[in-house]
Amino acid sequence: MRETKPLILVTNDDGVHAPGIYALYQAMRDLGNAQVVAPESERSAVGHALTISDPLRVWAVDRYGENFGHAVNGTPADCVKLAVKSILNKKPDLVVSGINQGPNTAINVIYSGTVSAATEGTIMGIPSIAFSLASFRISDFDFAARFATHLAKKVMENGLPDGTLLNVNIPALPEDQILGVKITRQGKGRYEEYFEKRVDPMNRNYYWLAGKKLQLDNESDVDDVAVLERYVAITPIQFDLTDYKVLDQLKEWNLGMPE
Amino acid sequence: MRETKPLILVTNDDGVHAPGIYALYQAMRDLGNAQVVAPESERSAVGHALTISDPLRVWAVDRYGENFGHAVNGTPADCVKLAVKSILNKKPDLVVSGINQGPNTAINVIYSGTVSAATEGTIMGIPSIAFSLASFRISDFDFAARFATHLAKKVMENGLPDGTLLNVNIPALPEDQILGVKITRQGKGRYEEYFEKRVDPMNRNYYWLAGKKLQLDNESDVDDVAVLERYVAITPIQFDLTDYKVLDQLKEWNLGMPE
Repeated sequence: MRETKPLILVTNDDGVHAPGIYALYQAMRDLGNAQVVAPESERSAVGHALTISDPLRVWAVDRYGENFGHAVNGTPADCVKLAVKSILNKKPDLVVSGINQGPNTAINVIYSGTVSAATEGTIMGIPSIAFSLASFRISDFDFAARFATHLAKKVMENGLPDGTLLNVNIPALPEDQILGVKITRQGKGRYEEYFEKRVDPMNRNYYWLAGKKLQLDNESDVDDVAVLERYVAITPIQFDLTDYKVLDQLKEWNLGMPE
Repeated sequence: MRETKPLILVTNDDGVHAPGIYALYQAMRDLGNAQVVAPESERSAVGHALTISDPLRVWAVDRYGENFGHAVNGTPADCVKLAVKSILNKKPDLVVSGINQGPNTAINVIYSGTVSAATEGTIMGIPSIAFSLASFRISDFDFAARFATHLAKKVMENGLPDGTLLNVNIPALPEDQILGVKITRQGKGRYEEYFEKRVDPMNRNYYWLAGKKLQLDNESDVDDVAVLERYVAITPIQFDLTDYKVLDQLKEWNLGMPE
């Protein structure tokens, strides 16, 4: 008999040993042949990075006494590329990334390794979804995992437009406190940041990035607002960064060659 | 007398010792007080990465027997954040990134450290420009540097819309073979990639990413097409990744909560 179960690639940026990817893997096993290929350790805020100057290595990883998947000494985007091109025997039907510990909304979207993994899947022509749980504390991934199964099923039924991925942020609340689902846009919220300057035991200076997120939106169709208001926020994401509304304005500059 | 020269932050992703940043620094000295803060070594294809799990360190760097600026053990985005928040005494009037060795067009824009540095400047509310020379070989940066002076002057005169940066790609040709300037959009070209599997002296496998860029556009208002046709390509870039054309389509899915 031919294998007809869909092939689902599961990855993340918190690393192959994180609790969130275990929950996502279990959720995807209900839907098909789930295969984990993920960074060996945490790779948060890596943006859409690729490893081009170093070799990549791959290890088999066990969890709870069972074969769990593969670890890679690379970024989330590396994992997706390497999984599709070298580890799996065929192109996956779906790429899922997460479940991230902490939200990926507003400006965080551009720093997010979770989103970049799903972006890489989309670039490779595979329907892809990024899942994040909006809490940095130890969390209960149970509802988020059930929502992942629910949405992944819909995406495999309906497909996604070419070049579009879904960025999903789930409130860290018990299911009965979640009010529903909203289709959202990326917020404008960013960080108010500073660097803590410290001195190491060798008397040399070093700096740590610190800061807090500024909430700059209040419309309820914005990703981080929807999550605060207890909705699952689903934002369709694409990667043409052209600022189309500014194109004509720039043409009016009549930029010639330098004199 | 009060210091009235504009403060210009110069950074890149090829590292503080690259030839391109030296050319850009010299070009910006004609326009104001140019200050270099750049990665200590090459950080290509780092995407919009931030260093959050490690401390950042800063060194003073000399080139050609003169004080050149500061090196940071971080990404291009780290350099911009750290420069603005901790190294310079005030907010720069302009951030310039480059001159990159190699084009940052089409899909490369999302992997580009050069572009991410300019993006970080824009997030911090500073007009920002990324410059790339479309050649990976040892190149003559002379025309590109003169173009950088020309455009930087225009940007400081006209300003840029809030949230918009300029991504500039310059053909690697003598000036008399360059036909002019085009305002462009980001192309759809991506890579056809594979991994070379090799065996190290300890008999362990490793993988190198390899591949070639696919040219998928032919309209002359697309970044990489314009460069091939011998124009300087200027693409306005923004970082709201929402796929607005898909929002309504997703609403029709009527996604409820999982059963």
